[in-house]
Amino acid sequence: MSAEYVLTLSCPDRPGVVAAVSGLLARHDCNIIESQQFGDPVAQRFFMRIQFAGRPGIIDELRTAFAALGPELGTEFGMEFEIFDLAVKPRALVLVSKLGHCLNDMLYRVRSGLLPIEIVAVASNHPDLRPLTQSYGIDYHHLPVTAETKPRQEAELLTLVGHYRADMVVLARYMQVLSEDMCAKLAGRMINIHHSFLPSFKGAKPYHQAYSRGVKLIGATAHYVTPDLDEGPIIEQEVARVNHTHSPEDLAAIGRDLECQALARAVRWHAEHRVLLDGHKTITFPR
Amino acid sequence: MSAEYVLTLSCPDRPGVVAAVSGLLARHDCNIIESQQFGDPVAQRFFMRIQFAGRPGIIDELRTAFAALGPELGTEFGMEFEIFDLAVKPRALVLVSKLGHCLNDMLYRVRSGLLPIEIVAVASNHPDLRPLTQSYGIDYHHLPVTAETKPRQEAELLTLVGHYRADMVVLARYMQVLSEDMCAKLAGRMINIHHSFLPSFKGAKPYHQAYSRGVKLIGATAHYVTPDLDEGPIIEQEVARVNHTHSPEDLAAIGRDLECQALARAVRWHAEHRVLLDGHKTITFPR
Amino acid sequence: MSAEYVLTLSCPDRPGVVAAVSGLLARHDCNIIESQQFGDPVAQRFFMRIQFAGRPGIIDELRTAFAALGPELGTEFGMEFEIFDLAVKPRALVLVSKLGHCLNDMLYRVRSGLLPIEIVAVASNHPDLRPLTQSYGIDYHHLPVTAETKPRQEAELLTLVGHYRADMVVLARYMQVLSEDMCAKLAGRMINIHHSFLPSFKGAKPYHQAYSRGVKLIGATAHYVTPDLDEGPIIEQEVARVNHTHSPEDLAAIGRDLECQALARAVRWHAEHRVLLDGHKTITFPR
Amino acid sequence: MSAEYVLTLSCPDRPGVVAAVSGLLARHDCNIIESQQFGDPVAQRFFMRIQFAGRPGIIDELRTAFAALGPELGTEFGMEFEIFDLAVKPRALVLVSKLGHCLNDMLYRVRSGLLPIEIVAVASNHPDLRPLTQSYGIDYHHLPVTAETKPRQEAELLTLVGHYRADMVVLARYMQVLSEDMCAKLAGRMINIHHSFLPSFKGAKPYHQAYSRGVKLIGATAHYVTPDLDEGPIIEQEVARVNHTHSPEDLAAIGRDLECQALARAVRWHAEHRVLLDGHKTITFPR
Repeated sequence: MSAEYVLTLSCPDRPGVVAAVSGLLARHDCNIIESQQFGDPVAQRFFMRIQFAGRPGIIDELRTAFAALGPELGTEFGMEFEIFDLAVKPRALVLVSKLGHCLNDMLYRVRSGLLPIEIVAVASNHPDLRPLTQSYGIDYHHLPVTAETKPRQEAELLTLVGHYRADMVVLARYMQVLSEDMCAKLAGRMINIHHSFLPSFKGAKPYHQAYSRGVKLIGATAHYVTPDLDEGPIIEQEVARVNHTHSPEDLAAIGRDLECQALARAVRWHAEHRVLLDGHKTITFPR
Repeated sequence: MSAEYVLTLSCPDRPGVVAAVSGLLARHDCNIIESQQFGDPVAQRFFMRIQFAGRPGIIDELRTAFAALGPELGTEFGMEFEIFDLAVKPRALVLVSKLGHCLNDMLYRVRSGLLPIEIVAVASNHPDLRPLTQSYGIDYHHLPVTAETKPRQEAELLTLVGHYRADMVVLARYMQVLSEDMCAKLAGRMINIHHSFLPSFKGAKPYHQAYSRGVKLIGATAHYVTPDLDEGPIIEQEVARVNHTHSPEDLAAIGRDLECQALARAVRWHAEHRVLLDGHKTITFPR
Repeated sequence: MSAEYVLTLSCPDRPGVVAAVSGLLARHDCNIIESQQFGDPVAQRFFMRIQFAGRPGIIDELRTAFAALGPELGTEFGMEFEIFDLAVKPRALVLVSKLGHCLNDMLYRVRSGLLPIEIVAVASNHPDLRPLTQSYGIDYHHLPVTAETKPRQEAELLTLVGHYRADMVVLARYMQVLSEDMCAKLAGRMINIHHSFLPSFKGAKPYHQAYSRGVKLIGATAHYVTPDLDEGPIIEQEVARVNHTHSPEDLAAIGRDLECQALARAVRWHAEHRVLLDGHKTITFPR
Repeated sequence: MSAEYVLTLSCPDRPGVVAAVSGLLARHDCNIIESQQFGDPVAQRFFMRIQFAGRPGIIDELRTAFAALGPELGTEFGMEFEIFDLAVKPRALVLVSKLGHCLNDMLYRVRSGLLPIEIVAVASNHPDLRPLTQSYGIDYHHLPVTAETKPRQEAELLTLVGHYRADMVVLARYMQVLSEDMCAKLAGRMINIHHSFLPSFKGAKPYHQAYSRGVKLIGATAHYVTPDLDEGPIIEQEVARVNHTHSPEDLAAIGRDLECQALARAVRWHAEHRVLLDGHKTITFPR
């Protein structure tokens, strides 16, 4: 009997890393199932994701072994690694406003076993999506927000993150700009879906912007949230053809499918530890 | 025996236009083959393209008849129309610099009967693409340009347009910014291919910009040229997936196919009179 | 104040039809909003869809007027037309088995106003999707079926069609082959989603077939149901890239999105009277 | 100074292979640039491609070392590997008939440095594409064929393969069915482009078949040639949307772009040793 794990690792790019890592896993009787790597030629940094089978409970032993690998390879100052048990699904807090298509899509995927996360709660600045959420037996928190109450509301959101021990936060069409402080606190584990093909049409009302510019393709972008609005590392994008007959409302209707798909893929890849941060870009290792 | 024609028409949007136009064509024994229309709800303007069969030589008679239609419909101040004989292919002057993929693609399509234009000459600020051009038996004009000689070189380009009686100009990766005057003179009949998914990555080196931003899709945009750089009305766009392993050079290699396809479609639609200008946007009536 | 209508029409292809139809509409003070046409060169038949605004209640008057148009045009033996009030949404009975992704997608689209149908009931040969259906306040009928009970079960399905006055039936992953008789009774108003890119992989387990063949793209096909299995007129298709790492189960997971999208577009186009039958093919007039 | 190599390897799937392979490379001072692997769960077989940098001339030494690896891993009866010097471009003989779009596309890509093969000669059963071929300074062989002369003509083709020391043969719209014997002789190194989305529309006139069936997407498929017509292992596929207005000739025109792209990708991947045969399927390791 064996369990499945994922190792993600990055270090200064030098020869022998793959041999050292795969050798270590072999010595611990771990069998590599999937392996992907990338050497960033600009950053001179090496990134790796290995999915492997090993005996249950081996994770601490491996962590100790890998902690010793950096010094052995002479990269002691720069190696970073994490090991995850794939049986442990990330716990996600989902934030929404009024539009529920992304939430509905995620809820259904999770129930169908297509999205390996656990949605522990949904929070919103509006009450609209309570019935949908509760039909899945999930807690719904209505936290209204105004300019004055924003700091307090964000504090409540962070309390929810703690209360539910959320590993990640998904902004599934949450139409509030978050404070720099909140972005910093959830850096690398908060994913937003922006309803445009970034970097086109940042900011508000991107479908209206797309309509005004007369583009022939619209898109959606899932990205990690950073304090710099709509500038976070892009995880996934999707596009669809449009034409002059489409009003801004038509574009929004077409865009809903793009948003659902780009967000679902980004969340799944994040949950499967397939997304590695490389400066302000992402390395994605989908199958 | 009959010939094929295209009528393009725009006028203030009001009831009865389709009936008036189709009635006029029916009275002249013209048979509608393809018809598309669009009422712009913002501009309150109606646009129409009708492809029809009629007896050879009827074009002047129809022009006279349509000129009388505006007053009849009470839209005398706002109706614009054109009638084209589809047997007459637009004469195109193609401008290039050093990269020849779009030129090669267009030359081959024209020879194969897939692009209904006549390439009457190619002009370039570099000599590199002379052999390719001449292998198709087409004139090649090398017109070097520097900051000082730009006005004179543009004058020479315009002389070529006149000399060859060019109906349209195609910038097939011509890497020079054109003067406002030149853009104005060729307004509505000069098409450029920009190697990004506009409005993302305007200006120079878009593939390097895309690499820096870490996008997951790159694109190409064919548009009419206006004095406002990369802001002209978009005719067609194309995209392809990329990932973190792709260098700027890889993106450029992938992008070449996108550029060829978007430009070829835009030029074909223009040549078939399927593109109508609606302010700074285009209405495209592809099949 | 005005209402919106759709006229669909087909007749032997001859000159003057557009003029006659648009003239008739103009005389009844109807304003054309959208118009599409197609002359099938093989069948020598002309097809047209016109969306127009007219005064409320005009539909019977128009039907009488159009009934007289055939004789006037000399096509009395071949003209067929229908006029629909767009405010009247088609009533749909949805059939499912155990997989609910298409049903969930349709329910959410209908509630969001993105799919102009009314789902009047859901019927299934399994009880699994009752909670999902009832969470939308919609009747659910569990009608188990075996080889012996099939005729009786189909009779019950047809009774439901009558009871709910269903205008259309949607097979949203209903995994039962219907009898020739039932297909005939619902001809032209029963839409199925097949989980392959037809005509590839007809019949059972198409994702397993796709896996075995090693294709690099999989697809889904929405089509009208005919007695000839998986041979009905195709309305819409969608595809996605796959690779050697994907198991049949992975293909099924990826395919779910394709099925939802192809089916949603096909149902919407049918509901908006954008799909015309042309022999065993469809003419689709999407925007 | 270093050279770049590619190792492709397959063996029965068991633990430790990656460690053994990467360890061997590390001991020979080779630096892994790109690595991909796949364990086929059905065939219980492991496949790997590693691109690495090593000192010039090391290839024979590595071959000896890898030959000893099988026994060491206890997989001596099942390991297969090849090592290629990436500086050595495969020599390709291209076969064509009358249609030259794929040939033109390949010639231009090769000249632009986008397709890492050397086209050593073009052979055809028709004389039409001689001028295009010769404008690139490449030999053209006109080898007409009839039912009676087919064996002799194929013998001449095989003589050309030998004469030009061709590593691969590309059927770039060569419209002749090859004999079983010829297919066997060039197994695994002859790539065909079929102008349909296989397995749909095998055999002759696929665009006419697609027209008759009324599909909404058409495709092209690049595959290794096997004696079983259009059943060879698929390397790459491409698709595009079409509709009822497109005649078979329109489909062929749209399909040309798909054919060029699918074939160019398949040939490039083959030339970069990114395609591994896994029974009658391919494993492709594109970047």
